[in-house]
Amino acid sequence: MNIVMIGSGNVATHLGAAIINEGHSILQVWSRDLDRAKTLADNLEKSGSEVYAINQFSDLITDADLYIISVADDGIEQVLKNMPKVNGCIVHTSGSTNMHVIAPFSTNYGVFYPLQTFSKNVSIDLLDTPILVEASNDHGLDLLNELALSISNRVQYCDSDQRMSLHLAAVFVCNFTNHLYAIGHDLLAEKNLDFDLIRPLIFETAQKVQRELPKQVQTGPAVRNDEVTMVKHLNQLQNHPEWLALYDTMSNLIAEQNKDKSIS
Amino acid sequence: MNIVMIGSGNVATHLGAAIINEGHSILQVWSRDLDRAKTLADNLEKSGSEVYAINQFSDLITDADLYIISVADDGIEQVLKNMPKVNGCIVHTSGSTNMHVIAPFSTNYGVFYPLQTFSKNVSIDLLDTPILVEASNDHGLDLLNELALSISNRVQYCDSDQRMSLHLAAVFVCNFTNHLYAIGHDLLAEKNLDFDLIRPLIFETAQKVQRELPKQVQTGPAVRNDEVTMVKHLNQLQNHPEWLALYDTMSNLIAEQNKDKSIS
Repeated sequence: MNIVMIGSGNVATHLGAAIINEGHSILQVWSRDLDRAKTLADNLEKSGSEVYAINQFSDLITDADLYIISVADDGIEQVLKNMPKVNGCIVHTSGSTNMHVIAPFSTNYGVFYPLQTFSKNVSIDLLDTPILVEASNDHGLDLLNELALSISNRVQYCDSDQRMSLHLAAVFVCNFTNHLYAIGHDLLAEKNLDFDLIRPLIFETAQKVQRELPKQVQTGPAVRNDEVTMVKHLNQLQNHPEWLALYDTMSNLIAEQNKDKSIS
Repeated sequence: MNIVMIGSGNVATHLGAAIINEGHSILQVWSRDLDRAKTLADNLEKSGSEVYAINQFSDLITDADLYIISVADDGIEQVLKNMPKVNGCIVHTSGSTNMHVIAPFSTNYGVFYPLQTFSKNVSIDLLDTPILVEASNDHGLDLLNELALSISNRVQYCDSDQRMSLHLAAVFVCNFTNHLYAIGHDLLAEKNLDFDLIRPLIFETAQKVQRELPKQVQTGPAVRNDEVTMVKHLNQLQNHPEWLALYDTMSNLIAEQNKDKSIS
């Protein structure tokens, strides 16, 4: 499959690497910033054939099979407006953007959404990463399924409305969770305790819900209605009013969801 | 080492199993509820010598080396008041309870705190679980270090004030995180999407901070200051005012902590 990658961020980088590793060709990488396009193109070339870095849409080849737009959500439409007419399928990789934003620019389009968190310098195996696909026609869907199944064992059709909910859920379980880790880090740092002390707990908390459902394995003072401990915690948070408010909010939500389980 | 376990909950169960596996003897298990004491005693007997279940403190043997009080925090003092005078070291396993609550009842006491989340039916290897120890005297500390080092590679001294912060941090990174998973589950369920779709993301989010610090790997619309996406998410949450408020709170906290990183 001949592919053009439009974008050079974390998703483009990780997706590009996985695509090349499976023997597909990425012909060009476009980025507004030519240096960034070159960095990604060079990386991809290491494990495949030549990849051209471009930053002008006038240089875009128009006969690739697939154009993957992997830029910030608010840049997708700008790309679509500026790129030349192409025959291949045009997809974006955004969780929270409707597929049909591409409709004014093509009849052959879709979405290729890898549901995972990608960071610079953190490599990741996409085999277990769900890839959600959606397309404007059967031909496009076949193409996206073929590509997705070559890099992941977990490919699923999902419409734009469902994908919005997946993306929202991802923000809760990934972005917000990571910030709770950051708060944990800061609470320990205040007492000269190393973050390493709670890494096993973080890992086990995620590990536990790989088989169980979260509600079934909820632990802690809020679900036990252990007010003595909660009052101690609130006292400890006096110097952090915003974390104190968060503690209160989360404890109430947990108590509410687990009313039936409380031992009080 | 001859040990008496006072309590039969999740911590007592997991700790008891690890202790027996390392060749120590648990002589008795006390629980207010004799059936629960028997269940744990039977479990422990499978991999060791005889373990007696009791529910009367008058039956407690008084010459064990160590008495581990592993009951709900608000039950610790009740246990101390009711148990007979013993010569061995008395410890509790509570993160948020000061060591000195034991002082009125003994001169030989301490804390044995495994920093992990324990659920029924979810087995766990304690080798990587930090065990935080504290004791009223050197003899007690030696004893606790010996026991802790036999079941874990990560044993550390920690005073009561530090342990309170560890426990509070644990609530944020474990209990609150698990509730974010529960919200994610419910958001997907509303669209007939399986929780399995976000399990890899949950795992990777925890995996990523095993080497990196959370602040360094924060992703998502809040840290990018991507207001278009955040407005979409808030609209999706109109029917869940409490999650909408949480979304707002968390996004503000993330934006605040990462001011310097925003691309806007």
